Amino acid sequence: MGQTLTEKILSDHLVEGDLTPGEEIGIEIDQVLMQDTTGTMVWLQFEALDLDEAQTELAAQYCDHQTYQFDFKNTDDHRFLRSAAGTYGAHFSRPGNGICHNVHKENFAAPGKTLLGSDSHTPTPGGLGQLAIGAGGLDIAVAMGGGAYYVEMPEVVNVRLEGELPEWSSAKDVILEMLRRETVKGGVGKVFEYTGPGAESLTVPERTTITNMGTELGATSSLFETDEKTKDYLERQGRGDEYVELTADDDAEYADEIVIDLGDLEPLIACPSMPDNVVPVREVAGEKVEQVLVGSCTNGGYEDVLPAAKMVKDQEVAKHLEMIVAPGSKQAGEMLARQGWTAEMMAAGVNVSEATCGPCIGIGHVPASDSVSLRTFNRNFEGRSGIEDDNVYLCSPQVAAAAALKGEIVDPRDLADELGLDAPGIELPDKYDGSKTDLIYAEDAIDDELIKGPNIGEVPLQDPLGSNISGETLLKMEDNITTDHIIPATSDILKFRSNIERLSDFTLSRVDETFAQRAKDAGTGVLVAGENYGQGSSREHAAMCPMYLGIEAVLAQSFARIHKANLFNFGIVPLAIDEETYAKIEQGDDVEIVDDVAEAVESGQEEFTIRVNDDWEATANLHASERERRILTAGGKLPLTKQQAEGGAAPADD
Amino acid sequence: MGQTLTEKILSDHLVEGDLTPGEEIGIEIDQVLMQDTTGTMVWLQFEALDLDEAQTELAAQYCDHQTYQFDFKNTDDHRFLRSAAGTYGAHFSRPGNGICHNVHKENFAAPGKTLLGSDSHTPTPGGLGQLAIGAGGLDIAVAMGGGAYYVEMPEVVNVRLEGELPEWSSAKDVILEMLRRETVKGGVGKVFEYTGPGAESLTVPERTTITNMGTELGATSSLFETDEKTKDYLERQGRGDEYVELTADDDAEYADEIVIDLGDLEPLIACPSMPDNVVPVREVAGEKVEQVLVGSCTNGGYEDVLPAAKMVKDQEVAKHLEMIVAPGSKQAGEMLARQGWTAEMMAAGVNVSEATCGPCIGIGHVPASDSVSLRTFNRNFEGRSGIEDDNVYLCSPQVAAAAALKGEIVDPRDLADELGLDAPGIELPDKYDGSKTDLIYAEDAIDDELIKGPNIGEVPLQDPLGSNISGETLLKMEDNITTDHIIPATSDILKFRSNIERLSDFTLSRVDETFAQRAKDAGTGVLVAGENYGQGSSREHAAMCPMYLGIEAVLAQSFARIHKANLFNFGIVPLAIDEETYAKIEQGDDVEIVDDVAEAVESGQEEFTIRVNDDWEATANLHASERERRILTAGGKLPLTKQQAEGGAAPADD
Repeated sequence: MGQTLTEKILSDHLVEGDLTPGEEIGIEIDQVLMQDTTGTMVWLQFEALDLDEAQTELAAQYCDHQTYQFDFKNTDDHRFLRSAAGTYGAHFSRPGNGICHNVHKENFAAPGKTLLGSDSHTPTPGGLGQLAIGAGGLDIAVAMGGGAYYVEMPEVVNVRLEGELPEWSSAKDVILEMLRRETVKGGVGKVFEYTGPGAESLTVPERTTITNMGTELGATSSLFETDEKTKDYLERQGRGDEYVELTADDDAEYADEIVIDLGDLEPLIACPSMPDNVVPVREVAGEKVEQVLVGSCTNGGYEDVLPAAKMVKDQEVAKHLEMIVAPGSKQAGEMLARQGWTAEMMAAGVNVSEATCGPCIGIGHVPASDSVSLRTFNRNFEGRSGIEDDNVYLCSPQVAAAAALKGEIVDPRDLADELGLDAPGIELPDKYDGSKTDLIYAEDAIDDELIKGPNIGEVPLQDPLGSNISGETLLKMEDNITTDHIIPATSDILKFRSNIERLSDFTLSRVDETFAQRAKDAGTGVLVAGENYGQGSSREHAAMCPMYLGIEAVLAQSFARIHKANLFNFGIVPLAIDEETYAKIEQGDDVEIVDDVAEAVESGQEEFTIRVNDDWEATANLHASERERRILTAGGKLPLTKQQAEGGAAPADD
Repeated sequence: MGQTLTEKILSDHLVEGDLTPGEEIGIEIDQVLMQDTTGTMVWLQFEALDLDEAQTELAAQYCDHQTYQFDFKNTDDHRFLRSAAGTYGAHFSRPGNGICHNVHKENFAAPGKTLLGSDSHTPTPGGLGQLAIGAGGLDIAVAMGGGAYYVEMPEVVNVRLEGELPEWSSAKDVILEMLRRETVKGGVGKVFEYTGPGAESLTVPERTTITNMGTELGATSSLFETDEKTKDYLERQGRGDEYVELTADDDAEYADEIVIDLGDLEPLIACPSMPDNVVPVREVAGEKVEQVLVGSCTNGGYEDVLPAAKMVKDQEVAKHLEMIVAPGSKQAGEMLARQGWTAEMMAAGVNVSEATCGPCIGIGHVPASDSVSLRTFNRNFEGRSGIEDDNVYLCSPQVAAAAALKGEIVDPRDLADELGLDAPGIELPDKYDGSKTDLIYAEDAIDDELIKGPNIGEVPLQDPLGSNISGETLLKMEDNITTDHIIPATSDILKFRSNIERLSDFTLSRVDETFAQRAKDAGTGVLVAGENYGQGSSREHAAMCPMYLGIEAVLAQSFARIHKANLFNFGIVPLAIDEETYAKIEQGDDVEIVDDVAEAVESGQEEFTIRVNDDWEATANLHASERERRILTAGGKLPLTKQQAEGGAAPADD
């Protein structure tokens, strides 16, 4: 039986398990990338592992989220990241050099390789045939230590693209159409492989717009086969020698097939406040717009900004509106400047920004209250722009530029008639000739020790799991507690991401402001929650901070998948309780696990007995693989990896 | 007897008083300018005065401080300012179009006219022969209402410039030399008129660097005569018809004369943390630098950035350092982009920012902890960069670029030898051909009513002055307390500038975090300070917030000019005490003004008796004109102007 491209790349990298969808597999990681708001913790963990140098073929550290550096903690983080990259052999991309996914695509993304990144849009280089997956920071640290990455084997779905994009439609409309059809949950547990003549017709930058925003489908990754266009792109980037031809077998079997005729796509737009709330632009035409932003890892490339620049040249953006262009990389920004497009955009009334993720995560250019913001970004979750009750629409650069000129949402085809605009095609430059000055290659590193500002703390380490767990029920929570409840991500708190001691003061503050202090006073304790505890983002801080505060077990009716993995990773025992037990247990109750916990976890025991207030007993279940039990027994993944390294075992063996 | 140029312009605009130094005069204001962090309050005050339209020849509203728009409050402020400018007949400059002083210089500054601006660096167009003065927002609102502006007639000092600047020395070194000699207090109560062959040798942009930073001397304003170079500059800006020849009379009598031979000037630098802490660059050469910023109203012009761009072209900035260039205006930015210099800077490793004041006031690009930042800005007050214990040096773009290349402070003459650099001269473009798209002229306004976001509050109003002032000394402060101490300008605080109730929580927090709460608890009280209380920016919030918190009097050894005017304007009694009294009075002491305050202020009484802790007495002096006494008696300028308006008197009559 033939293989899909995903299966081929996974086979090449498989170190544990087999390629059965839903089963856990371990794969070797060739490249890792980190950005600034997750990277500091990755390096602190790497330091705690006492390893000398990144073991992956390539590691790259980018500074892209907090580039405006509005607090010294941001600038200190960037300096620390430079020193860590230098010390441990990673490439370092300075703040201002661009968004990790863009700079990685330009410089390092390689067909057939695996890439693990501590950012959810890591799948971007899937457009070049690289299998790229987003993960939590500790997984990156372990991968850099030479350890395998464990993931559920995804289903592979064929997205067959027919036809060619009409004028004024774009790659953004392809992924918006996917979101319209499949929704933000449609990709969970899946890799989307884009094939067919329509896929062939797309340039690499267009392909990476699609793979980038595949994340919004919930997909594990998205992938294009490689071809002459891939080779051509790499050659124009001066990396033609890294080209590898990669295709699925003709008789590959896909779990499912989706067919999109590109010729049918009209300009689309995602309405507030979910990326799958997609309608044709014409359906919302006439909506007054006060802000237009072009950029981000989705549409911040040279090839993305250029069409917008061509459209606004010799025109003026509407007077009641602000248009900001933040190129996704300095390569893009420098080329646009050198070719005169930056000046043309400025002349048209565009505010040209530094290369940054900034506004996409609410850092800078927050919309005015009660106003519509049109963005070429990938997410429009409510409040993400930095203001509650925002009205953020997602669209292509062409639709964005049209709105900027008209002052309201308009289908660019209609505006073209009105203003006599030509449809800008996607043009690749003869050569991507931006300089590399802001990339400090590992071999040119200037640091050989870590530089830690006063806000950069230590990674807390936990002792191996003991025999006894008992303590007060410090908090009893409802269903659907999110990681935003556990560790909020607002900027006043985000700046403490490198400082668990300080960050932990905010633990669960959105549920109970007194929690952190009570946990500290108690020294130890357990949490009780309803269904779906820990849903939302992958932030490992949501496990690390409770661990730091002495939480030893969470008793919940059910756990969200990634957060449960994080609880294992940080040595907190996740026990499933039934509805009756949940109802009976009260905040303040003393809970004791009757079993010898360490022995029971190690031996594979599933049923545990808990004794409450020395008065009544109930059963709690530990659903954990052998690998997860080893992690828990060791006190978490970090101690386990340390143990293995000291014992001479390869960290790959966890 | 002949007149100085200052006297000539003042004579032309005099509506009250005579030109005797130290005496108060009232002058007619031709132009006003406002920026975003002071402008919202100006327009709220203008609205409170119930006036229809700006009465000055020209009013211009700029958005330059909060251009990164970190909070929706910033964006809301910008929208409010656009709506206010449109409603009341002012020009509006969009965020990203540049710093008020730069854009005003390019578009509106006119020889012989008076300009009042709600920013302390308003004197910038003195380099074109415009008499420009910084003032509190309320003075601007009143001037826009047709009222005169009242100021102590300054002494006029002749700064005679001989010779010509050597290679690698610059206009910045002229003003740094002035600061070295005269200190940050040396200009108080003075206008500096720059004359002589050295003045003639300087281009207009060089002159405006000097007049801009004359503010750091404490000067009321700084002024150059006009000549062929002025005419030439205006012609290149497309405004040759606005040229007026203006010179002092040959037999003008100056209060003092300072002679500087430009030929003697070497590259200078202001060391942390005061602009007058000036030494030759060579004295601090070798100091490692981690951040270099080029821009600001002092050195952000096309002619300022160009030398730096030429120096870094085909070079690379040091790897351990970040160099950020924020052009002072979009005109500058667009021209530099069009001519290829932006691309060259980016290629050298420069992060090219939006046109903004930002980093100069600690908004963005805050230095890393324990690091040196070199800036072409005008102020390096401790903490102003956004981090306490900062190490900010001030220098020319040439010195900044040299440090960026070398990675440490270096005299550019020494680096030129090392790298074979040519000294970049000051070059004016044939034509300043930036577009005007981001200027919305009053006649093209799109708003005819105010748009207020939820953070835009009300102007607080004070009752008329009472008979009794007594209360606790809530804070005793040192010399040289700046308005940055009183109301910090970091972005977390700046966003509340339109909301006095909320902003007042941060009053004097940099001196004592408990102050605001203690003041609220006390309900009333007084402040005690040493010399030069309230130096620095023009922000009237530094008087408005203490007023809001119930402060009724400030006892200081001396007051900075603009802040003292602001204290009058908001009904706080500024009393001068001698050194002995200052030394004796302690924080927490109860202070009572023995006199009937309202009656004494109104009657012109200068000497007041203060009684401390019901134990000892001292004398405190009120130095106030009749007009200032009327303001104080009414409870501030806004209540007075409202009274007058209701009573049918022209606001000019206050």
